Amino acid sequence: MQIAIVLFDRFTALDAVGPYEILSRAPGAETVFVAERTGAVRNDSGSLALVADRTLDDVPAPDLLLVPGGPGQSDQMENENLLGWLRAADATSTWTTSVCTGSLLLAAAGLLDGRRATSHWLALDMLGTYGAEPTGERVVLDGKYVTAAGVSSGIDMGLTLLGRIAGDEHARAVQLLTEYDPRPPYDAGSPEKAPAALVEEFRTGSRFSLR
Amino acid sequence: MQIAIVLFDRFTALDAVGPYEILSRAPGAETVFVAERTGAVRNDSGSLALVADRTLDDVPAPDLLLVPGGPGQSDQMENENLLGWLRAADATSTWTTSVCTGSLLLAAAGLLDGRRATSHWLALDMLGTYGAEPTGERVVLDGKYVTAAGVSSGIDMGLTLLGRIAGDEHARAVQLLTEYDPRPPYDAGSPEKAPAALVEEFRTGSRFSLR
Repeated sequence: MQIAIVLFDRFTALDAVGPYEILSRAPGAETVFVAERTGAVRNDSGSLALVADRTLDDVPAPDLLLVPGGPGQSDQMENENLLGWLRAADATSTWTTSVCTGSLLLAAAGLLDGRRATSHWLALDMLGTYGAEPTGERVVLDGKYVTAAGVSSGIDMGLTLLGRIAGDEHARAVQLLTEYDPRPPYDAGSPEKAPAALVEEFRTGSRFSLR
Repeated sequence: MQIAIVLFDRFTALDAVGPYEILSRAPGAETVFVAERTGAVRNDSGSLALVADRTLDDVPAPDLLLVPGGPGQSDQMENENLLGWLRAADATSTWTTSVCTGSLLLAAAGLLDGRRATSHWLALDMLGTYGAEPTGERVVLDGKYVTAAGVSSGIDMGLTLLGRIAGDEHARAVQLLTEYDPRPPYDAGSPEKAPAALVEEFRTGSRFSLR
């Protein structure tokens, strides 16, 4: 099984690396980071770079494709080279997946028309304008399309999908090996749980100096 | 505040990127990936590479140093260049931290003598042989030394530490932005919760084909 994880300038690192750490442990998986050009691709803060080992053209037909999100997603929404690759790869994929605002790129490519899907909580409205049916769930499966909510949710998506791919026992083994027994010290990880004033600060944009 | 994240061959990617995604969002943080040589550093599977932008020598006195783990840790336990850097950086650091078997490197450098600390659940016994007092907790603070359990626990460590560094409100804002409201589809993330037979397979080494 070939897994292709798409990189683009100003992606969010955990969107890609969270599910990578889980899905790359599927039996027989060959995981490859791809981008328009090979070489280092910088994340949203510029302080992290992941290496794309192959170009998009080098990997035309992965079994599983994963699109992370991040602030740089907005620059790709009309990039026909990337969107065309997503359409072509999706035509033969077993699974087409995204984390965070990566779903906006799948939607921009026309792949989520009429499908239930999710995204970062701040991007759910926009997901709807691109033809998907947004839901507030953390991980959404609609046929072969698997979308995750913001950033850290890619780990839950990865484990959910690994169970489908490799079975529950293997998924549990990977959960144990990665010691994924989360204990957040706060309980503010969703707009329903966080203080309303904080949610509002993000919605109005006054908090975006965080990155 | 300067944050240095140490890379070495065959590190585990999520060990580094989980807390990176949280801690790099501290106000005024400058985060830098460091290694003995600059350039791409491959992870435990070889399919992922993070770029080290600076050498260890370039970053002699970070405010916060973070050592990830991974199978490659064992090759570094007598690497005096790295261990010497850890000792020197620790001499002036505000926080000295690790994820997973990264704590074994801190311990090998003599930095955890007599301190409460944690590691990947499979490495807790070895942590004790290097002079630390192992505990099974997910995140352990002992003075300025903050150690996390396996792989994914670095996210909890990052958020705990961000609260100390930047205050609870900022930490909650980062939790919300990264949508860290985990919902694992299984409940096998610790040796206490996983099926006993699975835990035993790891302890006897028969499961290490996972990577």
